[in-house]
Amino acid sequence: MKFQASTKVQIPRGTDDIMPGEVEKWQWIEQKAREICGLYDYHEIRTPVFEHTELFHRGVGEATDIVEKEMYSFTDRGNRSISLRPEGTAGVVRSFVEKKMFAQPQPTKWYYMGPMFRYENPQAGRRRQFHQFGVEAFGSVDPLLDAEVIALGMQYFKSLGLKDVRVEINTLGDAESRQQYREKLITYFEGYMDELSAEAKSRLYKNPLRILDSKDARTKEIAAGAPLLRDHLNETSRNHFDTVIRTLDLLGIPYVINPRLVRGLDYYTHTAFEYTVDISGAQAGSIGGGGRYNGLVEQFGGPEMPGVGFGIGLERVILALTEQQVKLPLAQGLDCYLITLGEEAKLVGMKVLQSMREAGLRVDRDYMDRKMKAQFKTADRLQATYVAILGEEELKRNQINVKRLATGEQETISLDQLISHIQQQR
Amino acid sequence: MKFQASTKVQIPRGTDDIMPGEVEKWQWIEQKAREICGLYDYHEIRTPVFEHTELFHRGVGEATDIVEKEMYSFTDRGNRSISLRPEGTAGVVRSFVEKKMFAQPQPTKWYYMGPMFRYENPQAGRRRQFHQFGVEAFGSVDPLLDAEVIALGMQYFKSLGLKDVRVEINTLGDAESRQQYREKLITYFEGYMDELSAEAKSRLYKNPLRILDSKDARTKEIAAGAPLLRDHLNETSRNHFDTVIRTLDLLGIPYVINPRLVRGLDYYTHTAFEYTVDISGAQAGSIGGGGRYNGLVEQFGGPEMPGVGFGIGLERVILALTEQQVKLPLAQGLDCYLITLGEEAKLVGMKVLQSMREAGLRVDRDYMDRKMKAQFKTADRLQATYVAILGEEELKRNQINVKRLATGEQETISLDQLISHIQQQR
Repeated sequence: MKFQASTKVQIPRGTDDIMPGEVEKWQWIEQKAREICGLYDYHEIRTPVFEHTELFHRGVGEATDIVEKEMYSFTDRGNRSISLRPEGTAGVVRSFVEKKMFAQPQPTKWYYMGPMFRYENPQAGRRRQFHQFGVEAFGSVDPLLDAEVIALGMQYFKSLGLKDVRVEINTLGDAESRQQYREKLITYFEGYMDELSAEAKSRLYKNPLRILDSKDARTKEIAAGAPLLRDHLNETSRNHFDTVIRTLDLLGIPYVINPRLVRGLDYYTHTAFEYTVDISGAQAGSIGGGGRYNGLVEQFGGPEMPGVGFGIGLERVILALTEQQVKLPLAQGLDCYLITLGEEAKLVGMKVLQSMREAGLRVDRDYMDRKMKAQFKTADRLQATYVAILGEEELKRNQINVKRLATGEQETISLDQLISHIQQQR
Repeated sequence: MKFQASTKVQIPRGTDDIMPGEVEKWQWIEQKAREICGLYDYHEIRTPVFEHTELFHRGVGEATDIVEKEMYSFTDRGNRSISLRPEGTAGVVRSFVEKKMFAQPQPTKWYYMGPMFRYENPQAGRRRQFHQFGVEAFGSVDPLLDAEVIALGMQYFKSLGLKDVRVEINTLGDAESRQQYREKLITYFEGYMDELSAEAKSRLYKNPLRILDSKDARTKEIAAGAPLLRDHLNETSRNHFDTVIRTLDLLGIPYVINPRLVRGLDYYTHTAFEYTVDISGAQAGSIGGGGRYNGLVEQFGGPEMPGVGFGIGLERVILALTEQQVKLPLAQGLDCYLITLGEEAKLVGMKVLQSMREAGLRVDRDYMDRKMKAQFKTADRLQATYVAILGEEELKRNQINVKRLATGEQETISLDQLISHIQQQR
């Protein structure tokens, strides 16, 4: 074998190949997401991997890290600025508006799943291409729907066998409550102008709520004394949140009310929540989160129409499953591995293989001209239940030799019986 | 409802939202692909959506339309040139080399599925974001493996219910045969220098085989008289192709040998093939194709190692299924739609809903405070098998009223029996 090491091109930094052996976990957690969404009457929507950049400026918010620092934006050959989607909601809302789904009976209950892209400093559970599963329910202001969305995520985690997932929850109030609170916050932080971090200062008039989850030590101390939103909620906002909480109690969903929880995105109103689980090495133990965004559809040029949803980071789900040593489904073994002896049997073997596959059996053979012993070794490696051996003598008599690997039992049967023989005993 | 039409952001040209109602077809054809790959012992690999641009220059070929005109290339924030993948093979081969899979027992049998990107003039079946399902088998020169790959695709189409799929097949010979033929071709076309199209001229010394599938009328005429590769094959190449053809005969796979078939990509050796089916409105009726590329792994800095595979265009598969009016699986209806009467039943309804969902039933309820009649209409629209009605009286007695919509049968049962009642009769 000859190498040309100088000419290798490597995988882009912060992205991953998901290889056989690992990919089965992904297939499984995705399949579970589809199943659970089916139980809740949420239907899949697929939006493009890229959108006009403007969409994310509008949808995610100008003053967010995502849009300021982390977007993969570029100019296409038609001189439009497009961006790889950094999250799933903006495209889904764009589609809801563009397809005039608001004119259909509500609520519209959707889910999405797929790759997202952020130019971040790569670490475990924080990748430049990462994958999210999310749901969005549009068209209803009912707080029971917030609870349904939260419950859907919890049932998803449970179905995966993930333990000790908790909900952290907060309310950001409606627009009115939030506006009042915003003013209180600005006044409060203005009293500490000299001590705030540069980042906090720059956010003060754009998005003062974000200062509440600052990571700067002194800013954190100051924020700890800030007025609380729950003391400034109007009645609508208070009732909404109370009902969400009562429903979580009723459903037995473990939660903690966290008044500092404001989420990274600008567009939340009322409920904001996160799913947390202990993952060593990954930030904060959050594996997903969401909330209500009653103004978002309008912001995208649609009518006034509420929405609630979540996004779950699938890399983090995989990490958590690994940490908790949850037994995951492994790659399925073969039903039969075919060994042929001689030129004619080799060719006819293709026909035998095909008939088994058309009957729904998982089968393979050697394509390396290996010796019989090596082929048996391959059959073991591929976890074959049976090995079938087609020699020239058997071929003449229209027979085949089958061996059950687990027991060593071996018999010669008619070629016509091969499929039913394997089907009966697998 | 208030509109702000001026602020709408639209979907990028040439890309699509796949909506509920349509998406079930996609889920189904993807699930079938996974199933069939399982029968053939091909395992999924997922590579990133973008790669270093250089990878495609090397892997797809400098003198191809894809790389010259159609790639979404851009500079990331780290000043690297990256490109959205225009096809699936290059990334998969990169991964094969980078993960040193060549050191594992061969063949390596992989499949991939996902979005690809080409900046083309959008039309039906030709989108800027499109989706491919492909397989790649590395490590064996056995012509039976070429036949296996072709058979896998055919079984896939059959499993979807697609009729009249044919294989067009050709051989491009090995490197030696191809080099000899290349010289013959150049000499031949040099005799028509003044009459060739500009494109053909520009390809003459870079990739004269591509002139054979020119779309220019006069160039086509000239190409019709060009020497044929099959008259210039060495013995190895001839034997390889003969065995592939004999195996297709044996397997009953319908094919046509098309000596003009050279495929768009530079890296094929020996077998090249296309799957064709009649799709009105889409170019050429090709829904996929592939071949053998014995030099590709080496070209990516790996050892000398053969490969064979195909790529199938899923948009075209959907088009063909629609054209042939194949009956596709529809969205599944609900098992039960829950109607509640009164405030307390409304809240407790969430608990009833949750217990049904945890038992694996597909259920939903109203979140719009609709009148009962309208809720029955919704239950119909959602194709619910049952409607369950929880009123205050029933709640007091721990009962619930269930109605089977198809028959109108109605009965009051204990709340505890609800799940088993529905499970038994669905």
